[in-house]
Amino acid sequence: MYTFDELQELVRDRMDKQNYLEEPKKLFEPIEYILQDGGKRLRPVLLLMATNLYKDNVEDAIIPAVGVEIFHNYTLLHDDVMDNADIRRGRPTVHKKWDKNVAILSGDAAAITAYKYLVKCDDKYLRSAITIFNKVAMDVCKGQQYDMEFETRNDVTAEEYVYMIYLKTAALIAGSLKLGAAFGGASEKEMDMLYNFGKYLGIAFQLQDDHLDVYGDEKTFGKRIGGDIISNKKTFLLISAFQRAEGEQRARLKALIDAKEFNEEEKIQAVTDIYNELGIEELVKKEILKYIDMSIDLLNDIDVAPERKSVLMEMVSILKDRIY
Amino acid sequence: MYTFDELQELVRDRMDKQNYLEEPKKLFEPIEYILQDGGKRLRPVLLLMATNLYKDNVEDAIIPAVGVEIFHNYTLLHDDVMDNADIRRGRPTVHKKWDKNVAILSGDAAAITAYKYLVKCDDKYLRSAITIFNKVAMDVCKGQQYDMEFETRNDVTAEEYVYMIYLKTAALIAGSLKLGAAFGGASEKEMDMLYNFGKYLGIAFQLQDDHLDVYGDEKTFGKRIGGDIISNKKTFLLISAFQRAEGEQRARLKALIDAKEFNEEEKIQAVTDIYNELGIEELVKKEILKYIDMSIDLLNDIDVAPERKSVLMEMVSILKDRIY
Repeated sequence: MYTFDELQELVRDRMDKQNYLEEPKKLFEPIEYILQDGGKRLRPVLLLMATNLYKDNVEDAIIPAVGVEIFHNYTLLHDDVMDNADIRRGRPTVHKKWDKNVAILSGDAAAITAYKYLVKCDDKYLRSAITIFNKVAMDVCKGQQYDMEFETRNDVTAEEYVYMIYLKTAALIAGSLKLGAAFGGASEKEMDMLYNFGKYLGIAFQLQDDHLDVYGDEKTFGKRIGGDIISNKKTFLLISAFQRAEGEQRARLKALIDAKEFNEEEKIQAVTDIYNELGIEELVKKEILKYIDMSIDLLNDIDVAPERKSVLMEMVSILKDRIY
Repeated sequence: MYTFDELQELVRDRMDKQNYLEEPKKLFEPIEYILQDGGKRLRPVLLLMATNLYKDNVEDAIIPAVGVEIFHNYTLLHDDVMDNADIRRGRPTVHKKWDKNVAILSGDAAAITAYKYLVKCDDKYLRSAITIFNKVAMDVCKGQQYDMEFETRNDVTAEEYVYMIYLKTAALIAGSLKLGAAFGGASEKEMDMLYNFGKYLGIAFQLQDDHLDVYGDEKTFGKRIGGDIISNKKTFLLISAFQRAEGEQRARLKALIDAKEFNEEEKIQAVTDIYNELGIEELVKKEILKYIDMSIDLLNDIDVAPERKSVLMEMVSILKDRIY
């Protein structure tokens, strides 16, 4: 059995050995650039963990797993164009470093590259792999569409929000686990259980991200605390606050959101105060725990010896411990 | 054996029966829009012609063929964003009718839709289909990249130009024929022969498009004559003219290209005069005929009864007749 760190190393090492640079270089340089940013490689690692549940040798799943990571980075690349984001993991985004046309076309080429890697699997898994991947890839597009639509809507419910983050974020995590199970030779039923395990885990991850943006420690979170509050991002916290707030509190929250000019620290503090008054932190923690517990239940039900599940279980436990 | 018109009707009918509109509607409406523009459906028709060389029943290849048409329309959609084109086949482009973000994301969803349709083939053809398609899809991206790079280069040769149009236009035509051959159960060798047949045919089509832009009849060409000249598009004709022109002629051509203000009809006439002085029409006709004859030679060598090849041969003959 591989540990998380060992699989991460395996993925990083294999990714370093790939040559992404074909002719014309200008098409492929941005792909190399986005793949060099030192992400956690969470999705391919989860894919390999799922394979490793059923098989000791995960070698044949590594290149398809790299395909999933390439796809993930492609979605970030195009999302950054659509969101007009300047910085991604401390570096200029592709459309800032080059331009929008480069970002569109290199993104398109990255998506095709992802497919090329994905299908480097044994013929007996090809149909499963491509079917899972096509569905998940489309779900990610749907999630991005809902995310953009939600920006201009004021009536988004917490349920709609969770469905959006399922599509935009959790679906690819779920799909990675399902792909890994497929490459491990798991049954359809087990593949679906791992998909749902990943779905709940992915939703919990994203809700935790929303939570830490307000209540996290800047040192460990890696991003500035309150960034979502400053940009009025419709997170689970803000949506829940609007669902709960009434009268004077609601007016106060709305005034903070609508203000065109404000002191950033004051706004963060004032919105956090309202969250505290409304018990939003407890609410989001409860929601995260709900999804973590659902994922643990599924993992327990998966028909594999407990020791083989220990790596996945440990990962979930670490996430759970951080909630308190 | 199906005629061109019968296959076109088969493709159109099947495309009309698809439901492209999933939720969220705003993601899929632009896909429905681009697929309703009444294109000739050349690529899926060629795919089915290739299948029909080997099989009477082309039913199983129709949905994958629709996938190729969806992919073609996706590339046009993203190209129109990159080229900032306002009109496509008489209708506003997606980024004009909606906006750029819609065009990027719906384009991404269209590409995934193309893959979903493509893989609706028998398992025994899946590996071939996805391998051919991945390569061709990437070639189209490479072609678009070269096309954009050529815009700012003044030293593009005719050979480089032909390679660019091979990637950007002919590769998908070639790939369609190869896919069709695969679905027909052809050998690898025959698949490659049909690929090259399509490659030469596609290059001839594009060169003919360049030719007709200057020397065509506005009524039958469907576009305004001289559009490429007005926009200084680096076609085979302009590149060849720069390769041939010297001294005063070259200076005259350069002045026409560099002029910021000009009367459109005068510019078209003046550039056409230079083309005539340099024998550019004969040159491009000769080049078109070279590629048509290469495609005919390949078609003759394909190991299928001549009567089965008659539909493809007739299509090439019509193209050839138009050269004179």
